[in-house]
Amino acid sequence: MPLKTEFDNLAGEVIARCHKLSSFSEDAHSTRRTFLSPPMRDVHREITPWLEPLGTPVTVDAIGNLRAIYPANQSHANEPAAPRLLIGSHLDTVPNAGAYDGILGVVLAVALLQQLHGRRLPFAIEVVGFSEEEGVRFRLPFLGSRALVGRLDASTLETCDPQGISIRSAIEVFGLNPQEIPQARLTDEVFAYLEFHIEQGPLLEKLNLPLAVVDSIAGQTRLELRFLGRSNHAGTTPMDLRFDAMAGAAEWIVAVEQHAKHTPGLVATVGSVQTIPGAGNVIAGEAVLTLDVRHQNDNIRTCAVDDMIHLARQIAQRRGLLLNSIPHLNQSAVPMDSFLCGQIEAAIRRTGCAPHRMSSGAGHDAMVMAEKVPSAMIFLRTPGGVSHDPAETVLVDDVAKAIECGMHLLDQLASSPDFFRKHAEEKN
Amino acid sequence: MPLKTEFDNLAGEVIARCHKLSSFSEDAHSTRRTFLSPPMRDVHREITPWLEPLGTPVTVDAIGNLRAIYPANQSHANEPAAPRLLIGSHLDTVPNAGAYDGILGVVLAVALLQQLHGRRLPFAIEVVGFSEEEGVRFRLPFLGSRALVGRLDASTLETCDPQGISIRSAIEVFGLNPQEIPQARLTDEVFAYLEFHIEQGPLLEKLNLPLAVVDSIAGQTRLELRFLGRSNHAGTTPMDLRFDAMAGAAEWIVAVEQHAKHTPGLVATVGSVQTIPGAGNVIAGEAVLTLDVRHQNDNIRTCAVDDMIHLARQIAQRRGLLLNSIPHLNQSAVPMDSFLCGQIEAAIRRTGCAPHRMSSGAGHDAMVMAEKVPSAMIFLRTPGGVSHDPAETVLVDDVAKAIECGMHLLDQLASSPDFFRKHAEEKN
Repeated sequence: MPLKTEFDNLAGEVIARCHKLSSFSEDAHSTRRTFLSPPMRDVHREITPWLEPLGTPVTVDAIGNLRAIYPANQSHANEPAAPRLLIGSHLDTVPNAGAYDGILGVVLAVALLQQLHGRRLPFAIEVVGFSEEEGVRFRLPFLGSRALVGRLDASTLETCDPQGISIRSAIEVFGLNPQEIPQARLTDEVFAYLEFHIEQGPLLEKLNLPLAVVDSIAGQTRLELRFLGRSNHAGTTPMDLRFDAMAGAAEWIVAVEQHAKHTPGLVATVGSVQTIPGAGNVIAGEAVLTLDVRHQNDNIRTCAVDDMIHLARQIAQRRGLLLNSIPHLNQSAVPMDSFLCGQIEAAIRRTGCAPHRMSSGAGHDAMVMAEKVPSAMIFLRTPGGVSHDPAETVLVDDVAKAIECGMHLLDQLASSPDFFRKHAEEKN
Repeated sequence: MPLKTEFDNLAGEVIARCHKLSSFSEDAHSTRRTFLSPPMRDVHREITPWLEPLGTPVTVDAIGNLRAIYPANQSHANEPAAPRLLIGSHLDTVPNAGAYDGILGVVLAVALLQQLHGRRLPFAIEVVGFSEEEGVRFRLPFLGSRALVGRLDASTLETCDPQGISIRSAIEVFGLNPQEIPQARLTDEVFAYLEFHIEQGPLLEKLNLPLAVVDSIAGQTRLELRFLGRSNHAGTTPMDLRFDAMAGAAEWIVAVEQHAKHTPGLVATVGSVQTIPGAGNVIAGEAVLTLDVRHQNDNIRTCAVDDMIHLARQIAQRRGLLLNSIPHLNQSAVPMDSFLCGQIEAAIRRTGCAPHRMSSGAGHDAMVMAEKVPSAMIFLRTPGGVSHDPAETVLVDDVAKAIECGMHLLDQLASSPDFFRKHAEEKN
């Protein structure tokens, strides 16, 4: 292994690159880079010269994922198709985002290739920068990884953003061909998916640890709820004759918070509220809300969601409002691959740190990828637990540990032909 | 007085004209016509040929009000400046508006001139279509009438809409000159302001009466409140470590509603809520809300507002949030002119209806105009009390009664030289 200072220097470069990428934004004074927005083009343009000198040509697939294959060593390159390890994360962001969520995992994958200094392994490594994970633009998360596992059907492509633009036409406007989405699918030589990601929570900081193995990802439900009342004049409609959609919605938001607080491990969030028509002197005729519920245990989660919808119906009925609920996502908890988790644990231990196993409260592309290939994740400590915010940060020492851990892991996998050959063989 | 059928026919035309004007909108499928928006130009273009054949040339003043003077009869036309009665209302709308709020008062003013059939009175009549009353675009209501009473100062003109466009540049973009706003002011010959308006509430329907005299306008307070928390990841931040601005705001909205329900005659509305950043998987770091509070009694209103802000501070403090409150309007209750109210009462009685006196829960331009000239209002019954909604309507018989009442009122005022000469003399 190289000297610690070499990892530190590379870690500094990784952080600088994340910051550079955060400057490509739809907004003037903060980072917002939604699916196939114009700044995503700039991100691809920025990353390409980091990869190509490493012998890793860059392409963009039909859903807008950046993909770049670092070939296997010669003996295996002669095989019909060398086994291939995917390493990546996502390149899109939430509004008012930090510099690391998703991005760090892509930049770290590039750093691992740099750190190989031209050395080839018995398997190829494909860097993947997913075009869409956050679900901001179309309220449908994981579009990038869903294309890889073959779960983007024609009807999904007709989903429209708030401007009425469909996914299909967003793809065309970006200069890609939606007909070619099937070609983005994982092929049989891919034997595993690995993702570095910031924890985005307070746990590793509390434990004073730089890294963790993620052994499962919490299930999540996302819904849109619409409370429908009657818009009317704010000055002339007595309080007892109102059908105020926002007042009903507010009562429900408070109830959702109380419910989640009383269920250990449950998190529930109403992150977006819109009032229609949305004028100060008009009683809201409609309130449109998002609900995001997560738990490690699928049964606890689905029961909580049912309870919350039931509460919303009770509130609506008592107030003479109507209620619509539209499911956007219902994702079960996903276990990560046990062999990979064990290898990551060993690699962390070789960096001199205690390996910690934890569940991820956040959804990640790894949970979609796990449908098709053994997948695992490595979390980096997130100072203050702050994420989805410009104050999101990482420690340079932790990034250096992540690179070191990744290099150990690559070496361990290179010595595990049973593993990197097995997946393709099972398929054949 | 003409036959009842003549009023009925004219009432039918008034209703058709209101519908025609509602088609000029910023939105494709509903009526929204905010201050100096492009469709306001179409409204001016539509109204002009209704007025000019009556010998009433149309101008647009520097704040965008439509103004048209029907001259006094010859003997008074020779006076340096004939006394002048203003009749009008506003031409802007809320989002998703009905066809009558404001518009009806302007179209009825035109109808009264039509109904004169060229007959001149001892005073001129100026039709006014105010450019801004609702306060939607700049969250500052009554911009049109404030220009007439000289209450639009340079600093107000720097107020910006959500797109960052100031009132000053909106005026310039519309092709008007903000330097000329002082010329829009009321001159000494104006002796009174009269406004027809739909009630926008359920009272006249309940009393089975077509018209009412408005003897006062409720005071109102409008505020913007910002709850400031900390945006963070919805999946990884435990419930007890959150600073969720929207959850705090929701608790307050419920408290505001309860407070208003327990104070007789008070109405309080949170009509607009915005979450920042407003993504489903991000805890809201900021929630921006409007508050609109009204009551006939200024003391009850201001105490209620103080209580509500105090409640917001308590909630914010308990949750570790910050609170900003920004006052947008603090308008005292305004009594209408007693002589005019008596005359309207008499005119309603002459139409064969019982005159009813009431207070207006809604603010109107008449309350701004009353700062400078005797002002009064006539309410028309609003079926279902529905307003600020496409379902807003009026009964054709009630519109006919309003025209008849207006004609009686003009005749009564023409026989009241003490009144129409007095105001100008007091000024000299």
